[in-house]
Amino acid sequence: MWKSTGKLADGREIIYFDESAGLGRAELPDRRDLSADTVPAHDQAAAEAELRWDRIVGEWVVIAAQRQDRTFLPPTDECPLCPSTPGRLTEIPAPGYDVVVFENRFPSLRGVVSGDIGLAPRTASGPARGPAFGRCEVVCFTSDHDASFASLTPRRVRTVVEAWADRTAVLGAAAGVAQVYCFENRGEEIGVTLHHPHGQIYAFPFITPRTQQMLAQARAHAAAGLGNLFDDLLAGELADGSRIVARNEHWIAFVPAAARWPYEVMLYPAVRAPDLPAVSEAARAGFGEVYLDVLGRLDALFGIRMPYIAAWHQAPGTDPFARREFGLHLQVISVRRAPGKLKYLAGTESGMGVWINDVTPEAAARSLREAR
Amino acid sequence: MWKSTGKLADGREIIYFDESAGLGRAELPDRRDLSADTVPAHDQAAAEAELRWDRIVGEWVVIAAQRQDRTFLPPTDECPLCPSTPGRLTEIPAPGYDVVVFENRFPSLRGVVSGDIGLAPRTASGPARGPAFGRCEVVCFTSDHDASFASLTPRRVRTVVEAWADRTAVLGAAAGVAQVYCFENRGEEIGVTLHHPHGQIYAFPFITPRTQQMLAQARAHAAAGLGNLFDDLLAGELADGSRIVARNEHWIAFVPAAARWPYEVMLYPAVRAPDLPAVSEAARAGFGEVYLDVLGRLDALFGIRMPYIAAWHQAPGTDPFARREFGLHLQVISVRRAPGKLKYLAGTESGMGVWINDVTPEAAARSLREAR
Repeated sequence: MWKSTGKLADGREIIYFDESAGLGRAELPDRRDLSADTVPAHDQAAAEAELRWDRIVGEWVVIAAQRQDRTFLPPTDECPLCPSTPGRLTEIPAPGYDVVVFENRFPSLRGVVSGDIGLAPRTASGPARGPAFGRCEVVCFTSDHDASFASLTPRRVRTVVEAWADRTAVLGAAAGVAQVYCFENRGEEIGVTLHHPHGQIYAFPFITPRTQQMLAQARAHAAAGLGNLFDDLLAGELADGSRIVARNEHWIAFVPAAARWPYEVMLYPAVRAPDLPAVSEAARAGFGEVYLDVLGRLDALFGIRMPYIAAWHQAPGTDPFARREFGLHLQVISVRRAPGKLKYLAGTESGMGVWINDVTPEAAARSLREAR
Repeated sequence: MWKSTGKLADGREIIYFDESAGLGRAELPDRRDLSADTVPAHDQAAAEAELRWDRIVGEWVVIAAQRQDRTFLPPTDECPLCPSTPGRLTEIPAPGYDVVVFENRFPSLRGVVSGDIGLAPRTASGPARGPAFGRCEVVCFTSDHDASFASLTPRRVRTVVEAWADRTAVLGAAAGVAQVYCFENRGEEIGVTLHHPHGQIYAFPFITPRTQQMLAQARAHAAAGLGNLFDDLLAGELADGSRIVARNEHWIAFVPAAARWPYEVMLYPAVRAPDLPAVSEAARAGFGEVYLDVLGRLDALFGIRMPYIAAWHQAPGTDPFARREFGLHLQVISVRRAPGKLKYLAGTESGMGVWINDVTPEAAARSLREAR
C-alpha cells in the first residue's frame, strides 16, 4: 500500500492509498477555482458551526448550518467523487484512484490542523458552547461509481482497512482530538446524498455518548470482578451460537442478543484490540472475507440493495482504561425491516431512547445465515 | 369531563372521556369475535415479547416480534379508530366519542393488570432478560378521521390533557410501572401506520434512558449548588428571548439552545410540575392555546402537514428526587428540515449518539415566529 498526500485548490488535504507504487497521483494539481463557492476549510468555524451543550441530557450537539446547501443526489455525470477527466474536474484531481481520502468540503467539524482548541471537560457550570472543532473526511472506496462496498475485492477491502487504520492513527494523535470514527452510510433510505461508494471519518473533540456508555459498562463489569465485558460478550455469543451469522479464524459476525434494529450485525475480531491500528496484520487481511460475506447476505435478504450504516467503534485515544479494556467492533445496522417497510425512530426511540425491535435477533440471524 | 370504562371483546380495557354526561358509551358491548385473529391481551407475553438488556451500553431493548403484522395504512373506510357503525365494527364499539383510550391490540408491553412483575434494578451480573411488562394504550383525539391535533378546539385539547393526566395517574400507580409516557407520532414520514388522529401511552417497567440522563443532569446541577436545572433552563430562555416561539401566562414554547432536530420545540409550564397530574387547573386550561399555536406554525412553515413526534417528559413515579425536582415538558420534534428534505439519523446519530443539526436554533425559532 502506497500513501501520498496532496492539497486541493482550497487547501483541503487529499490522501491517496494506492495498490501500486509510483503513480504520482498526489502531485497532480487541483485546477478548480474554489474561492467563490466554498467556505474556506480552516476558518469561519465559530461563525458557521459550533458545538452546544445540551444541559438537560448532558451531551454535545453539533450545530452546522452551512451544510444545508451541500450537494444533494447529483446525476451520475456530475458526481464529485469520480476521478477528474479532461472535461470535468471533481474533488479528486487524479484520473483514477484505488482508495482516496480527503477533507469534506461541507464539514460539520473542522480545524484539526490549527492546533489544540479541544473542549475542556464539562462541569455543571462549564461552558455551554464551543468551537465545532474536529475533522470530517470522505473515504472513496473505489473509482467505480456504480460499485458498492459489497462488490469490492478482498484486496481492495484490505486497502480500505489500511486507510481507516492510517486515519485513526494520524487523526487520533492530533491535538484536541478525543476519538476517531470511521463509518459508511449506504442508501437513500438513510439520507445518503451521493451514490458513489464512499464512507466518512469524523475526528471528534469529545468522547461520544455511545462510547461513554460502553466505557461505563466496561468499568462496572470489571469493578464487579467479572473481567472484560467485550471478551465476555463474544465468548457468550460463541458458546450460544444461535446468533452467529458468519466467521473465520480472525473475525466473528453475530446479531447482538439485544439488537435494536431489525437487521443488526456486530463484527468482532477474535483477538480483542482497542482500535484498527492495533489489529494484527493477519486479522486485517482476514476482515474482508467475513465482512463481504455479511454484506452479501444483507443484500440477498430481500433481493434489494440493503440500506445500512456501518459504524466502527474504537477506543478513544486518550483514556488508559479504554486503551486497555475497550473491544473494537464494527456495527452494521439496517433500517429495513421487511421489503417495503422501514424501521422508523418514532416516539419511543426519539423521545425516550427506548428501542422496540420487531424482529427477534435469533430470527434475524437465521434469515441472514440462509440468505445468499 | 365524564370518564367511563368498558371492555372490548378480547378483554382489553376501553375508557371514554366525554365532554357531556350520560352518554352510556362504556356500556355498549363489543360485538366482534376477536378470538381467532388477536393475541390474547394478558398472556403469551414471555413467549412473544421480551425485554433484553443491552449489556454493552446498559439499556433495556424491547423485542416485540408479533407487531410485524400490525395494521398498516388501512384505507379510510377500514379505519379501526373510527366509531363503529351498524355495518362495520371497529375498535370503538360506540357510534361516536369525544376522546377515547383503549389498550393497544398489538402492544409492545403488556400485563400491567396481572400484578407486580416489574424488573429488579440491573446490576453487572443481573438478569439479561425480562418479561415485556407494561402497558400500551391508544388515545383517539377525535372521532373525525380527517382531523389532526392542530385542528382540535381548545376545549377538546383540554379533554385530551385530562385523559393524559388520568392515564398518568392510574398507570403510574400500578404495581411494577416505573414511568408513564404520553406521545403522538404524526405523519407517514416517521412511520405512522394509521392516519386517524391518535396518540399513544406507554407504561414502562423501567426508567427510560433519556429520563435517566435528565435526572442525572438535574442531580449534578443541584449538587453543584446551582439549584433546579429545569427552572434555570426556562429562566435562561426567557431572559435570552431569541428562541421563544409562543407563550401565554401558563406555558412557554421555545426552540432549545442545543436543538438536535431541525424544528424542535419545548413547551414548559411557567410553574414547574413533575407530571401532568400535578399541573394546576388553570395551566391545564391554558395549554391548548400555546400548543395549537405551535402546531399551526409547524404546519404553516413549509405549507404542508408537518410530520412530528410530540413527547411528554414526566417524572418517574417512584423517585423522590424526581417528584421534587423534575420539570414536566412537552418536546415536539420534526424530521423535516426543508420542503422535500428529511432529517435522517445516519452514522453519527445512530452509530455514536452525536446529533448534527443543519438549522440553527435561533433561525428555527425565527422561522416559526414568522410562520402563520
